[in-house]
Amino acid sequence: MRYGLTGSTGRMGKEIIEVFKGHDLVLEVNDTGIFRHGEPEVIVDFSNREVLKTTIELAVQFGAGVVIGTTALSQSDLTDLRTLSEKVPVVQSYNFSTGINIMKMILREFSSLLKDFEAELIETHHSGKKDAPSGTALMLKDATERDLPIHSLRVGGVPGDHSIVFANEGEVIEITHRAISRKVFAIGALTAARFCLEHEKGFYSFEEVIRWTQR
Amino acid sequence: MRYGLTGSTGRMGKEIIEVFKGHDLVLEVNDTGIFRHGEPEVIVDFSNREVLKTTIELAVQFGAGVVIGTTALSQSDLTDLRTLSEKVPVVQSYNFSTGINIMKMILREFSSLLKDFEAELIETHHSGKKDAPSGTALMLKDATERDLPIHSLRVGGVPGDHSIVFANEGEVIEITHRAISRKVFAIGALTAARFCLEHEKGFYSFEEVIRWTQR
Amino acid sequence: MRYGLTGSTGRMGKEIIEVFKGHDLVLEVNDTGIFRHGEPEVIVDFSNREVLKTTIELAVQFGAGVVIGTTALSQSDLTDLRTLSEKVPVVQSYNFSTGINIMKMILREFSSLLKDFEAELIETHHSGKKDAPSGTALMLKDATERDLPIHSLRVGGVPGDHSIVFANEGEVIEITHRAISRKVFAIGALTAARFCLEHEKGFYSFEEVIRWTQR
Amino acid sequence: MRYGLTGSTGRMGKEIIEVFKGHDLVLEVNDTGIFRHGEPEVIVDFSNREVLKTTIELAVQFGAGVVIGTTALSQSDLTDLRTLSEKVPVVQSYNFSTGINIMKMILREFSSLLKDFEAELIETHHSGKKDAPSGTALMLKDATERDLPIHSLRVGGVPGDHSIVFANEGEVIEITHRAISRKVFAIGALTAARFCLEHEKGFYSFEEVIRWTQR
Repeated sequence: MRYGLTGSTGRMGKEIIEVFKGHDLVLEVNDTGIFRHGEPEVIVDFSNREVLKTTIELAVQFGAGVVIGTTALSQSDLTDLRTLSEKVPVVQSYNFSTGINIMKMILREFSSLLKDFEAELIETHHSGKKDAPSGTALMLKDATERDLPIHSLRVGGVPGDHSIVFANEGEVIEITHRAISRKVFAIGALTAARFCLEHEKGFYSFEEVIRWTQR
Repeated sequence: MRYGLTGSTGRMGKEIIEVFKGHDLVLEVNDTGIFRHGEPEVIVDFSNREVLKTTIELAVQFGAGVVIGTTALSQSDLTDLRTLSEKVPVVQSYNFSTGINIMKMILREFSSLLKDFEAELIETHHSGKKDAPSGTALMLKDATERDLPIHSLRVGGVPGDHSIVFANEGEVIEITHRAISRKVFAIGALTAARFCLEHEKGFYSFEEVIRWTQR
Repeated sequence: MRYGLTGSTGRMGKEIIEVFKGHDLVLEVNDTGIFRHGEPEVIVDFSNREVLKTTIELAVQFGAGVVIGTTALSQSDLTDLRTLSEKVPVVQSYNFSTGINIMKMILREFSSLLKDFEAELIETHHSGKKDAPSGTALMLKDATERDLPIHSLRVGGVPGDHSIVFANEGEVIEITHRAISRKVFAIGALTAARFCLEHEKGFYSFEEVIRWTQR
Repeated sequence: MRYGLTGSTGRMGKEIIEVFKGHDLVLEVNDTGIFRHGEPEVIVDFSNREVLKTTIELAVQFGAGVVIGTTALSQSDLTDLRTLSEKVPVVQSYNFSTGINIMKMILREFSSLLKDFEAELIETHHSGKKDAPSGTALMLKDATERDLPIHSLRVGGVPGDHSIVFANEGEVIEITHRAISRKVFAIGALTAARFCLEHEKGFYSFEEVIRWTQR
């Protein structure tokens, strides 16, 4: 696979290069400029929303699919990505871990069966993480279709934990996801990149990528 | 509702009487004999397999539905209950908590999507509990359709915790159920008894009772 | 032991009567009045601060020790109790569980050794609990001598969980306490009442009661 | 610091080289031979007991302190290390994380105060880990001075979790340690190496290293 990478010198960028070994990095976007040595089939961007426009322009230029893991996107960013998806495949998610997405599916499906249970969310991340609550916590909350409180802890080097607690008068159900390392997101990005190569234009969730891997 | 109760003097029997307040206890089976002051519509038995035959005979005699929460039933006990269910409604489960049954549904549905994750079960109960692993842990294991290890802790007065841990190279998902009090099982028994009154003969799981409450 | 009980008709009052079985309840204070059939050696009050003055007056009248589990006391309430303790033994704590008090001791002693770890507190209680954070959470925070965030969850019938999470760049330590039932506080009250019988006037913490039981 | 490293090509060896950046690696022992470009002041060995004799000989030859993180040492290995410690400083531990060692101190000090609580241990590691229970779990068990059950889970890529559950009739205390990454052990090794430079011959635990850092 020939791939492009926005944010190639950042922490997540380095993880992606490590996990994408064996594939050709033909386009790099970072603080020092844009470097191109080929035509990317897919562009991966886990950086920040400031460079999203550049990623979109490059995707249009090369007809490349896009994998977007940038968090804290604005409504207008999402509109831009929707527009792009009329030309190329776009996989967008606030969390590229298989586990988180399966947790989301569980919540979407079982939240109504747990209607007599009250629920709250807890998420824990390293103290360097600036936004709170995490995009993932918001995504999980959406999946429950409830207006529930989210508690954000910022301590040490925790890669990312998310827990939802359901309780009624007599029992408690807790579902917890823990990222062991950042690598899990890079692995998800690689799967999503492969998905792009085999799909037509369109706006896809990472959940569709997971279901595709289960065929 | 006119109900009968096998094991009316035991710890669980007392919980049931407490939760069934407002209904008529017309038949009691316990260590000192069988006491009848009316015709039960349903018989509840959370005692032990030694008295199962008595419960079945009384159910046949009165055409009463049966709610069976006895654990550690043998294959032949289950056959006897199946035979009984050709005459009356029988609700049988190793665990009458809503939460545990929803956990079972989640495992049955998502275990295959988590096929790249390894899994193990942990269950913790009060040190007075003699059987290990718990019937509930075995039920949850069955739901995963995997041959996974079960770890049994027996400490203090814990009413009953069950956890399943799924992990792959980069992430962990843990689903935990905690019974806050024994009352939860008596509440489940009452719901199952109501279900019997509205259903024909047949062999039902507590899961069917839950789905019925969600109509 | 001859004991008095303030709030004898409340939920906690009933637990205390249950656990104090075998001792003589000779004085009751509740919504309908004050009922006396003897001279109490100790008065137990887990009700609310509105009736604290009555409890103090009765303690002075009978020279009875006092066990105070009322939460959300004001500074002036505490001053009143200190004054009372110049005449009789007073055991005051926001939490009468052995486990919570041992957790407090651990935090007081090890918080400084964990100085390179960041910390946050989480407490979970039944949704009927009105104050947040819990008095116990504040007590645990004090023990750490740190200014740390407290997250309060209010769901279902959870009797009371308290967790502290310490994390540095490479590791996490979590200490969790779970009350299994309200009974644990009544058991602590009984131990504290016994402590009063064997001690002179003075203001005592429940921690001193625990150390006394370990002699 | 001039240091030697036994097992320099293994997974832990690489972590150590990464964390020791800025110090001089002057001696390497690995599968392909012994490579020396200077005189080590301290030798670090987190490999396996087969090469322990080589590490000891080199330490004697250079008068270098030794940091030993090898697990599953035999009684005779420990005797050899004790003998070595009559000549040079030796820091030996089955776990070089600050958190685990603080957990050990808590257990040693509070296990007796929790005498009315029953206890069990759970440890979870990646499925590649062959020994069970972990050396760390055995070390924690020793600290409690109790004969308690240890449950070992082997799933996915979990770096290493250890939990101890204490419970009595009414409450549960759980203390959990989670390694976020292997790096934590390499950081501990660096601290222990620094400790060696400032200490005389003797056999030291990592706990003594931690107390030294807190001066």
